[in-house]
Amino acid sequence: MGAKKPIRMNAFVMNTAGHQSPGLWRHPRDRSGEYNRLDHWTSIARTLDEGLFDAMFMADVFGVYDVYGGGPEAALTAGVQIPIGDPFVLVPAMAAVTEHLCFGVTGNISHEAPLSFARRMTTLDHLTGGRVGWNIVTGYLDSASKGHGQTRAAHDDRYAIAEDFTDVVYKLWEASWADDAACRDPDRGFTDPAGVARIHHDGPYFRLDAMGLGEPSPQRTPVLFQAGASPRGRDFAARHAECVFVAGPSAQVIAPWVADIRARAQAHGRAPDDILVFAEITVIPGATPAEAQAKHADYARYIDRDGALAMVGGWTGVDFSDLGWDEPIAYQENDALRSHLEAITTADPDTVWTRRTLADFAGIGGIGPVITGDAPACADALEAFMEATDIDGFNLAYAVWPESFEDFTRLIVPELQARGRYRTRAATGTMREQLFGAGPRLAPPHPASQAVSQAASKTRKTRS
Amino acid sequence: MGAKKPIRMNAFVMNTAGHQSPGLWRHPRDRSGEYNRLDHWTSIARTLDEGLFDAMFMADVFGVYDVYGGGPEAALTAGVQIPIGDPFVLVPAMAAVTEHLCFGVTGNISHEAPLSFARRMTTLDHLTGGRVGWNIVTGYLDSASKGHGQTRAAHDDRYAIAEDFTDVVYKLWEASWADDAACRDPDRGFTDPAGVARIHHDGPYFRLDAMGLGEPSPQRTPVLFQAGASPRGRDFAARHAECVFVAGPSAQVIAPWVADIRARAQAHGRAPDDILVFAEITVIPGATPAEAQAKHADYARYIDRDGALAMVGGWTGVDFSDLGWDEPIAYQENDALRSHLEAITTADPDTVWTRRTLADFAGIGGIGPVITGDAPACADALEAFMEATDIDGFNLAYAVWPESFEDFTRLIVPELQARGRYRTRAATGTMREQLFGAGPRLAPPHPASQAVSQAASKTRKTRS
Repeated sequence: MGAKKPIRMNAFVMNTAGHQSPGLWRHPRDRSGEYNRLDHWTSIARTLDEGLFDAMFMADVFGVYDVYGGGPEAALTAGVQIPIGDPFVLVPAMAAVTEHLCFGVTGNISHEAPLSFARRMTTLDHLTGGRVGWNIVTGYLDSASKGHGQTRAAHDDRYAIAEDFTDVVYKLWEASWADDAACRDPDRGFTDPAGVARIHHDGPYFRLDAMGLGEPSPQRTPVLFQAGASPRGRDFAARHAECVFVAGPSAQVIAPWVADIRARAQAHGRAPDDILVFAEITVIPGATPAEAQAKHADYARYIDRDGALAMVGGWTGVDFSDLGWDEPIAYQENDALRSHLEAITTADPDTVWTRRTLADFAGIGGIGPVITGDAPACADALEAFMEATDIDGFNLAYAVWPESFEDFTRLIVPELQARGRYRTRAATGTMREQLFGAGPRLAPPHPASQAVSQAASKTRKTRS
Repeated sequence: MGAKKPIRMNAFVMNTAGHQSPGLWRHPRDRSGEYNRLDHWTSIARTLDEGLFDAMFMADVFGVYDVYGGGPEAALTAGVQIPIGDPFVLVPAMAAVTEHLCFGVTGNISHEAPLSFARRMTTLDHLTGGRVGWNIVTGYLDSASKGHGQTRAAHDDRYAIAEDFTDVVYKLWEASWADDAACRDPDRGFTDPAGVARIHHDGPYFRLDAMGLGEPSPQRTPVLFQAGASPRGRDFAARHAECVFVAGPSAQVIAPWVADIRARAQAHGRAPDDILVFAEITVIPGATPAEAQAKHADYARYIDRDGALAMVGGWTGVDFSDLGWDEPIAYQENDALRSHLEAITTADPDTVWTRRTLADFAGIGGIGPVITGDAPACADALEAFMEATDIDGFNLAYAVWPESFEDFTRLIVPELQARGRYRTRAATGTMREQLFGAGPRLAPPHPASQAVSQAASKTRKTRS
């Protein structure tokens, strides 16, 4: 057997205060409420760069969690992903102060126009020297659709829209400009017109008749992330994603998803390890087991239970506000809840799911596991999770900002490095090169590469 | 009579190589082709900040100039505003390296969704400490509409769309969140829900039912720029704009526009000087008159005449490619051309407009005047232009990047300072405070302030 896989690490963040740990903005050491200051972001980017993280993974939503209690009050009070800012505009400022850190940014195909979205990602890929990825999301909040004057598309329709949207932007990124079109050659022109092809797209949802506005960036198509959990979402991921983000409470829940995604990738003619899978995790380490436990208990005092249930309500569509705090939750009746909670209950038959225990469970690190202990214990748990699930790394959520990232860098990174499971120097090149040792462009059989060959022929035609 | 107005200065730029001087990317000292590198922007931002510029004004288009010759070839070859990148994502990185410089960014209401656009501007206003403005444009290129799968709206319809769009975003910026709603108070919550009102908008073009996603930023509504030249556009500007950008070849052309805009502002209940007017200009200074003339002649050698006419063709809709180079242009037959060229011809009866002379005229600094001379002569010309037009300052276009901005800072700024016409230390505060000595919020009778009072009553209702 070969060496074990390195453990890859993304920081899991959002341009908001309370991302996955509702209420912890009240912790005396927490600074997440300063999310609207630029140095909040440049400072954490430096920390992650020094900690040899692979990337910062930036989540996003365009709406408010308003299922719980039938309104947004709990989310607002707890600061659950509201107020929230744009993630894209943060990237160049962070790229300017980092050497290798990459940025996976969530872009919602329901609220973007393909031409301007494609241009924005191309701009980021240029400005970061190719250190950018796109987390393709279709949107799950009714409130976001209302905010855009839309009726939310049915679930499978959303993936049909996503197929059409990605088809357009792949053409814009891969098929419109030849590599050497923008040659800046006084004899041929700033751009040689023979190297630029017009894209004609007449899809079920998007029509476009234009050339790409940006010249080819280092990666052309940014590294593609996806996080679909449904069978249709996993199939989309298996076809398009280079990185997949999964969030579940335990290795038992996640392992079959990972196997399924890799199998589906094979069905699309890709190798199972063409996809890197990252699982959400929160790590609360201490110098000793006792210190870590005390830190966890201290954090837990600040959980906002209503906020936690507002978050779970947004994800599952279930309003828990009518239940008594110690009343059992009939979680088996809700698909999203059952898939998450059953495995925990099976592993630990003493678990009783009440409104209170569900809130405490989700109140730190959302639906992901929380690992607490000294560095060797945490490293053991991370390694065991890797082996049990066949994932490639983690999206590290924070409980307290920036402490969670600083603790990980200070305590866990050296332990994993000593075990040969974490890189000891930064990778170089674009995000795709850093993650896959290949690139910087997407290669067959990825669907974006279909657009490449189309481009070549178009360009040839234009030249003749 | 009081002291003369200070001369305000914006740098007129675009996230592209050839903005207003087609072909000059070929000049040996020009670096505009490095527009897709981050340090290109942070470096010029530092230059402008040190030169006490008021702002960087960032133009934008979403299409290609394809009228000339019936295709994009001339624009591509000359690098006329293609390839082009997103301007918004540049702003925070430049704000991070500057102290006071402000950023007016073009946002096209035809290609943006109000909720996400409002959030993006709020994010920029937070990250820059309130140093951001929005240049409201409706789009003039057919190619941009085709690129978004739209048929271009008729001219007056575009302003009706703009009225509806601004109405929505004013409500989101001004009426959704009370000043102290996001109080981060452990007793009241991260946000006090009583301080947040939902916006219900059901306009002719936009529908929305949502709270604003961002918390109030320093200015709430960014400083509003507009550049409409038509009567309908000027009326929109008179109602909404705090700053107006005009581009014309001479004081004679511009003066009546400025008077008209100020008169229209009064008709909307505003003071004539509630609006700051900036005119496009290009300055080519030298240590001596002879040096300046030589520099101008050197620059002119690099004009791409086809590119210049591609640009003019995009602005006027006239394809000049069929004319002989020395054939006279029947400019009187085209409204846009006549309004520009007649005044020059009147002032200088020897002017003969041919395809060649028009290209040479537009080839440096587009449709704006070019001032050449030693520092006193340039300062004289700028002062005379101010007095003859009643403008408040200039949008300074570059001929050669970054030389044009460096020359201005090095040679012209000290001369204007010695004359008491240019500030000698930076202003402080938000963009609105820097420009108007008032703010940071918009005040009555500006239409955005209507949304404020609506907000107050909504908030009160929620609280009761």
